[in-house]
Amino acid sequence: MLDGFFNAKNVAVVGVSRDINKVGHVIFQNFVESDFKGNVFAVNPNVEFVLGYKTYDRVSDIDEDVDLVIIAIPSKFVLDVIKDCGKKKVKNVVIISSGFSEVGNDKLEKELKRLLDKYGIKCIGPNTLGVFDAYGGVDCVFMPKTRVKRPRKGGISFVSQSGAVGGAILDLMSERGYGFSKFIGYGNGVNLEISDFLEYLKDDDSTRVICFYLEGVKNGERFFEVLKEVTKVKPVIGIKAGVTVEGGKAALSHTGNLAGDDRIYDGIFKQCGVIRAENVEELFDFVKVFDNYTYVKGRKIQIITNGGGYGIIGVDNVIKNDLELAKMNSENKKFLKNEFGGIIVGNPIDLLGDADNNKYKLAIEKSLGDENIDIVLIVLLTQLPLINTDIVDMVADLKNENKPIIVVSTGGGFTDVLVRNLEKKGVPVYLFPENAVKSIKALCDYYLK
Amino acid sequence: MLDGFFNAKNVAVVGVSRDINKVGHVIFQNFVESDFKGNVFAVNPNVEFVLGYKTYDRVSDIDEDVDLVIIAIPSKFVLDVIKDCGKKKVKNVVIISSGFSEVGNDKLEKELKRLLDKYGIKCIGPNTLGVFDAYGGVDCVFMPKTRVKRPRKGGISFVSQSGAVGGAILDLMSERGYGFSKFIGYGNGVNLEISDFLEYLKDDDSTRVICFYLEGVKNGERFFEVLKEVTKVKPVIGIKAGVTVEGGKAALSHTGNLAGDDRIYDGIFKQCGVIRAENVEELFDFVKVFDNYTYVKGRKIQIITNGGGYGIIGVDNVIKNDLELAKMNSENKKFLKNEFGGIIVGNPIDLLGDADNNKYKLAIEKSLGDENIDIVLIVLLTQLPLINTDIVDMVADLKNENKPIIVVSTGGGFTDVLVRNLEKKGVPVYLFPENAVKSIKALCDYYLK
Repeated sequence: MLDGFFNAKNVAVVGVSRDINKVGHVIFQNFVESDFKGNVFAVNPNVEFVLGYKTYDRVSDIDEDVDLVIIAIPSKFVLDVIKDCGKKKVKNVVIISSGFSEVGNDKLEKELKRLLDKYGIKCIGPNTLGVFDAYGGVDCVFMPKTRVKRPRKGGISFVSQSGAVGGAILDLMSERGYGFSKFIGYGNGVNLEISDFLEYLKDDDSTRVICFYLEGVKNGERFFEVLKEVTKVKPVIGIKAGVTVEGGKAALSHTGNLAGDDRIYDGIFKQCGVIRAENVEELFDFVKVFDNYTYVKGRKIQIITNGGGYGIIGVDNVIKNDLELAKMNSENKKFLKNEFGGIIVGNPIDLLGDADNNKYKLAIEKSLGDENIDIVLIVLLTQLPLINTDIVDMVADLKNENKPIIVVSTGGGFTDVLVRNLEKKGVPVYLFPENAVKSIKALCDYYLK
Repeated sequence: MLDGFFNAKNVAVVGVSRDINKVGHVIFQNFVESDFKGNVFAVNPNVEFVLGYKTYDRVSDIDEDVDLVIIAIPSKFVLDVIKDCGKKKVKNVVIISSGFSEVGNDKLEKELKRLLDKYGIKCIGPNTLGVFDAYGGVDCVFMPKTRVKRPRKGGISFVSQSGAVGGAILDLMSERGYGFSKFIGYGNGVNLEISDFLEYLKDDDSTRVICFYLEGVKNGERFFEVLKEVTKVKPVIGIKAGVTVEGGKAALSHTGNLAGDDRIYDGIFKQCGVIRAENVEELFDFVKVFDNYTYVKGRKIQIITNGGGYGIIGVDNVIKNDLELAKMNSENKKFLKNEFGGIIVGNPIDLLGDADNNKYKLAIEKSLGDENIDIVLIVLLTQLPLINTDIVDMVADLKNENKPIIVVSTGGGFTDVLVRNLEKKGVPVYLFPENAVKSIKALCDYYLK
């Protein structure tokens, strides 16, 4: 039902100024410069051309049918544009403009809703970033690419009630190489809210994992019903802001939504099997493991390390997170002991400071082939001199559709290169062991429930 | 009493191979290429020259007095070198070599200890990274600079029981621009352990904040006594591994130390006012705020944001961490309301998506001058178009010896540039609001106890 937003053929941007810093201009320019396959029209009654494109006085002046209209003008002019869209039989609009219920202008927002209902127009916004689709090419994020990097194609879809925070997270995820399907910022949510987007993404083939940033919902019952269904099909990771009374008050003046009692949301998330991120960082951590692995068979983790300290921290966190330390079978143990000489083959297997790629290979292979092991957690400290860059291909080649491999690596320049390449090949890497184990826990909780 | 390690004039490295990948070679090369003001001698009976330097067969062959000997040869040859050091009246050695109690070779370690005691030699190690001093130039970290970046001069000193983990953390902290005084990896701690280093760093002028990674101590009573004194003088941030029974077992086979019951350590930390980092990331977060601020007058925080969502998350975390939301005085409120028009001046002050540098400046200045505000938490989402790079100098210029300013900024390329420059000017920046508020909490807990 939201295909009109993502698969629009003809898009009009209302409010395309010649000033390159203005929101409308940035959006129009992003369309012109992107992979978008359809046509884009600039609407502005005050100029004749923008970026070499002829402009239209109003949407209804465009000869062709228009699937999607993006509105980036002061709030007081928005209603007139909606009426014009109604006349033109436009069915989908994104309203970027702020100045509605979030600043106490409830009257204007009510009137907007009435008009949208009258014409049967679906609306994302107002007071939002709108939509970015890595596959279809629709991009109404009003920040230039020098400020917000756009992500590569991938399996993550992100629904955000907050615009600026959504943009910042999108930017950092892009920078870190996360692959996206769709980003949706819906702001005040005048007639489409989180449940509508979740329902749509449930059936979206290119979306493997859904995450959301939420302050509050308008229709709690529907949210509950939709969530229950979506989590049966794919994992949903949610972060909820406004969990304290004071935070709730701040939320009310942000997107005009009641944050509500956090216990209610917590109950909904638990009953529906939503993976709750307690903070923004967990959102980053969890989404990475779910984008790379859609399976896990059990909770028994084997840790392989070249840094004893991280091995211990790994063990501590496996226990703290109610996961299990795997017990490698005696045959594999014996084999590795023989190969490794003095090394204690337990859990962790500490390959010590002089570990090389080959020792890792043997330990990982035996772990993957061991019936007592479900997940392999590799601590790879690349500061140690015998580790070389070939380890990227070695680890990536061992990835299979059976047992997740998760890597931990802490460090600067050289580490970064290895980490980026490992992640490009589909192996998630975490900066610290605690983050890795918490993410494994989330994966297990979802797939082994 | 440890000056011989950090202010050594004549240093000998034992085990300087011509093979550029060997530990001894890397250490010797690091000395030759560093700012080290003293003399460095290579010891290796099998070659005549290394890197153009004449080598010596043994330490006692060096004509001059030797203050510090760094030993990087197989463990079975170490005792002979110690005897030779005794003969030469060397008083300080670092033993990089592993192969002692951590692999069950308790006998060798006992004999080592006996010899060290006999000759009155202080020893860092064995099984460790040794020492890096950003001021004096001593550097026996055996990883080349292409693998472990060396930090700029600054106020952080870090004591690590684990070598590889210590190296990895040193690398990432250097990459992120943290400023160091001293790094000490002490491994098995045969006759110097954490208490000795803490005591030394207490009186080290260039150390502003001490952090440590610990698995277990040998002399718990002394640890308690020393910690009590050190925390009176400067903040100490500690991370303890081996907090679970299983983690404790792993620790025993790592550095040969009993991890002990975590409740005992927790009790010691609490009684001594140690700031306990629950995970490695908290160590990174906390050390940053303590290196930049040595003062805070109260717990009342004013949040200023251009992203509503992060404002709410900030409020949630202020409450969760038992800090206080400041209430700006009515005069300042009135002034800002007048200046800002429609913006709600509360806590947070949400400057909205069209916030520019000047709006931030006004809000920060009024907050710093307000008697009801102790700390200013600035959320700065640099994706929003009206923020420009001048904001770095503006914020840094407002830094004063009165009220800490903490910044939160999430994003990619453009954000990175701003963040790096803000941090260079002494303003700590956090990726997410949760990390910032937790660090403020740590700062308050230490200075307002």
